[in-house]
Amino acid sequence: MYRTKTCGELRIENAGEQVTLAGWVQKNRDLGGMTFIDLRDRFGLTQLAFNMEDHSDLCLQARELGREFVVQAEGKVVERQSKNKNIPTGEIEIEVSKIQILNAADTPPFIIEDQTDGGEEIRMKYRYLDLRRNPLKNNILLRHKLAIEIRNYLNNQLFIEVETPVLIKSTPEGARDFVVPSRMHQGEFYALPQSPQTFKQLLMVSGFDRYFQIVRCFRDEDLRADRQPEFTQIDCEMSFVDRDDVLLTFENMVRHLFKNVKGIQLPTFPRMTYANAMKNYGNDKPDIRFEMTFKYLNHSCKGRGFGIFDQAESVIGISVPECSEYSRKQLDEIIDWVKRPQIGAKGLVYIKCNTDGTFKSSVDKFYTQVDLGKIAEQAEAKAGDLIFIMSGNTSSTQKQMSELRLRMGRETGLAKSGTYAPLWVVDFPLLEWDETTNRYHAMHHPFTSPNVQGENWYKDPKSILANAYDMVINGVELGGGSIRIHDKKVQAKMFELLGFSDEEAKKQFGFLMNAFEYGAPPHGGIAFGFDRLCAMFGGTDSIRDYIAFPKNNAGRDMMIEAPDTISGEQLVELGLEIKKQ
Amino acid sequence: MYRTKTCGELRIENAGEQVTLAGWVQKNRDLGGMTFIDLRDRFGLTQLAFNMEDHSDLCLQARELGREFVVQAEGKVVERQSKNKNIPTGEIEIEVSKIQILNAADTPPFIIEDQTDGGEEIRMKYRYLDLRRNPLKNNILLRHKLAIEIRNYLNNQLFIEVETPVLIKSTPEGARDFVVPSRMHQGEFYALPQSPQTFKQLLMVSGFDRYFQIVRCFRDEDLRADRQPEFTQIDCEMSFVDRDDVLLTFENMVRHLFKNVKGIQLPTFPRMTYANAMKNYGNDKPDIRFEMTFKYLNHSCKGRGFGIFDQAESVIGISVPECSEYSRKQLDEIIDWVKRPQIGAKGLVYIKCNTDGTFKSSVDKFYTQVDLGKIAEQAEAKAGDLIFIMSGNTSSTQKQMSELRLRMGRETGLAKSGTYAPLWVVDFPLLEWDETTNRYHAMHHPFTSPNVQGENWYKDPKSILANAYDMVINGVELGGGSIRIHDKKVQAKMFELLGFSDEEAKKQFGFLMNAFEYGAPPHGGIAFGFDRLCAMFGGTDSIRDYIAFPKNNAGRDMMIEAPDTISGEQLVELGLEIKKQ
Repeated sequence: MYRTKTCGELRIENAGEQVTLAGWVQKNRDLGGMTFIDLRDRFGLTQLAFNMEDHSDLCLQARELGREFVVQAEGKVVERQSKNKNIPTGEIEIEVSKIQILNAADTPPFIIEDQTDGGEEIRMKYRYLDLRRNPLKNNILLRHKLAIEIRNYLNNQLFIEVETPVLIKSTPEGARDFVVPSRMHQGEFYALPQSPQTFKQLLMVSGFDRYFQIVRCFRDEDLRADRQPEFTQIDCEMSFVDRDDVLLTFENMVRHLFKNVKGIQLPTFPRMTYANAMKNYGNDKPDIRFEMTFKYLNHSCKGRGFGIFDQAESVIGISVPECSEYSRKQLDEIIDWVKRPQIGAKGLVYIKCNTDGTFKSSVDKFYTQVDLGKIAEQAEAKAGDLIFIMSGNTSSTQKQMSELRLRMGRETGLAKSGTYAPLWVVDFPLLEWDETTNRYHAMHHPFTSPNVQGENWYKDPKSILANAYDMVINGVELGGGSIRIHDKKVQAKMFELLGFSDEEAKKQFGFLMNAFEYGAPPHGGIAFGFDRLCAMFGGTDSIRDYIAFPKNNAGRDMMIEAPDTISGEQLVELGLEIKKQ
Repeated sequence: MYRTKTCGELRIENAGEQVTLAGWVQKNRDLGGMTFIDLRDRFGLTQLAFNMEDHSDLCLQARELGREFVVQAEGKVVERQSKNKNIPTGEIEIEVSKIQILNAADTPPFIIEDQTDGGEEIRMKYRYLDLRRNPLKNNILLRHKLAIEIRNYLNNQLFIEVETPVLIKSTPEGARDFVVPSRMHQGEFYALPQSPQTFKQLLMVSGFDRYFQIVRCFRDEDLRADRQPEFTQIDCEMSFVDRDDVLLTFENMVRHLFKNVKGIQLPTFPRMTYANAMKNYGNDKPDIRFEMTFKYLNHSCKGRGFGIFDQAESVIGISVPECSEYSRKQLDEIIDWVKRPQIGAKGLVYIKCNTDGTFKSSVDKFYTQVDLGKIAEQAEAKAGDLIFIMSGNTSSTQKQMSELRLRMGRETGLAKSGTYAPLWVVDFPLLEWDETTNRYHAMHHPFTSPNVQGENWYKDPKSILANAYDMVINGVELGGGSIRIHDKKVQAKMFELLGFSDEEAKKQFGFLMNAFEYGAPPHGGIAFGFDRLCAMFGGTDSIRDYIAFPKNNAGRDMMIEAPDTISGEQLVELGLEIKKQ
């Protein structure tokens, strides 16, 4: 027994009690007559007090304790003279009668406080020290709290958690798999799951009715910022449901989480078709905290001799409220920003709708005040607004304009942090044509049910909608799913549309096709990115800050230095050779 | 909305209600005038009734429904004429007014009932059908219930669940790792964790205080029966604790589980030293549901001219209560059984302690009735008991006698199923000498704290005890753990004792050694085999029956057919070649 209390629990009511605490030295202040130490553990900070007059030996001992020393202190809880209202234990301190060093500490390579002087790289290498800092510690505690809440919520809804295997089979569909060479079956490999998709569908065939799992998944992709090779999903599936059953269940789950974890009551989630999301926001995960929707301005913009607009498929504008007084410099910066290769716009036209009713635009040469007024009217702009206009091929222009819209949302504060605007995006296309491979890809995945009935559902592949849905909050896709195909014939046709030969389909998904022979129920589900969900609840963007031991952008764990070489003996046992470069 | 009720919830109180159910056809009985269908889902069975007179069309339709068809039925809840007291819905049936096939089913390859005709292999291949059977289904439901109970219990004890990485680094210590070739860093590999040991210790260094995780672990071993290459642990660690804190915490957890899941109140767990376990039971995981402890009979057995005993290091006996009337045939079978190579005894001596006070033994040639009486006295045998005696090298004889003791426990019914006898085994040796590699191995693992203090703790390696403990119930090791080393110097010395060079220790565990420089708290923990725990709660031995999608003894998933070959393209991307045999 190293302690009788934690560093977070003592209050004025405990005054007079004899206690033992253990923890880390956060701060050591020598004020001559008195020495104060802030002792830290997961639960809080408690002030230890040493009086030079009464116990000079103890006081001298205390002065020697460096930052991050692990110590055990015995003493009496007493009321503080100068109280600290900022911490729950701030009304008391410990009059220490005995102190013992449990472990000394070298000076940490960076300061372990809310604001640190450590760079990204050194903090990754010493992750175990970075995790001592409150911001990171609280993220990990939040993650735990969310996981517990989710599990209990789903359990109450009669979902059961089933663990699916991690050593499975590689499939060419989707992203690249990590593989695991088999020693017992040389030349063969397991693969790590990108998701438990087929297993959860098999569990529905098994009759488990409602499944979930908070589960690690793996993707061997070239990492972009804030992608991790291993990530965690909340994976769910239900039987005997249609789309609305699934949406309601998980909308309620997320509302429950917001209520119980953040104290925020979310409204009913609106639903938006993929087509409308693209049309109005140029984005299949629109941030609807703010309006600034797209206006199609072909009618008012074309035919005035401005060639760029005249030749464009679409002229699209947004009205940014109350920004008509942006300076030339500000506008130039924005124009440069949209022209960066990451966005790739060719140009950007602006119209300032001055508060006096006049207009000032970057295309005054081509448009009269009356013309500009008509554009402003079509763009639904008010006096004081700033209109941005892009043009070109519709889908590229939508994407570019979406980026600009999001930037302006942030810049104007309309995309207000701390507010949450959820929605469902529905009616995605089932298939998308891939120019590179010259075949259709499943937009969601090959098990997604088409939204059409009847024998001939597949006749016009391009126009088929999918029974798929994404949950989007503040422009972030938190989860997505679909009603699945449960009919073997439909599934076979789907594989055919995707260009699988019968043999390939059988080799890859034969077990699922077989399972569908023995009474598969109608079923559907959803998967949430748990890392992303945690980041949203934590109020920041970086998922890495919500993973205890993340990898860097090169897929490397800087702390343990993985991946690493293995012994020649291991390679021999696996029957593998590393190819010479 | 496919249903308004499940197949498990309707009662006599619901009579008169109009309901819609969906599920699988379990049974179809055509009684001429009436047809009855048992409709099954996860929640239960409900009887559908079709009357030939009232609805001949529906009735004819119903007769066509085969086993495992998925159907939806609408109708009225009515009281049954002949009630079935064996199922909760047995007082009602559904007078069906509409029935629809949601999916037809082929005849399953084996019968989907509690008793099935399917062999092991075919049930593994069609695991999704086997999981429909109640025994397996209930195992998976039990597993879920246990996981939820464990998480909530530990959460209430202020443990937090932290997810540790799956892609880590290979270490030569312990069993063989599965490895994962890195594509982005060719020639390098990740490894899958055998346990999150070092990560949980780092979390203690980070100050998380109380950690747990229900986590998948991996071991590339040649599989023995009932070993799985991937398995699940309940992994736990605590800071600022000594041994008794850990034992109490997890003893309480397991008692809580027995109480809440099985309604069984377990007593306080006794503690037994490893030395006593070996001496009295010949086993470091003794089944103490029954006595039959070892008696050391050198004194009474030696010196009577029976060479085998005279030359033996130890003569060990057990008294099997009330078995003195075993027949010659029974005894011969037991003698043959202990001589099998799996046990390897050279022989077995018996003494029947007849109820009339006489003795009959297999060594009557060497021992008089008085001699046998003295042996019986030393063996603490009563009239009616059967004494078994083995001899030889002490440790081999202990092991062999342990096997016989366990068999006799089962055979006599003294190892009563449904009763639970837990204990802690403590004070294990820290190190064991390995004849093959000619060096010490850590009996638990290299991070286990020695049970001795002071500078010179390591001077007599053989005699050092470890601060380690196992939880054992009914002869099954459910979990094990230790207080860890938290001092860098002790850890370095430990690596030295284990024959690591400084360089090797640094390469493998440098990050942990480094972490110990910055204020590591005293800490310790435990890990439970979750699959094993589920099997114990389920009352059977086979962990495979508690894993939704297990692998067979060759490490193969027979259902999805993994492992499998991968494409040449994948190998090229990984920079690997399969070595030609």
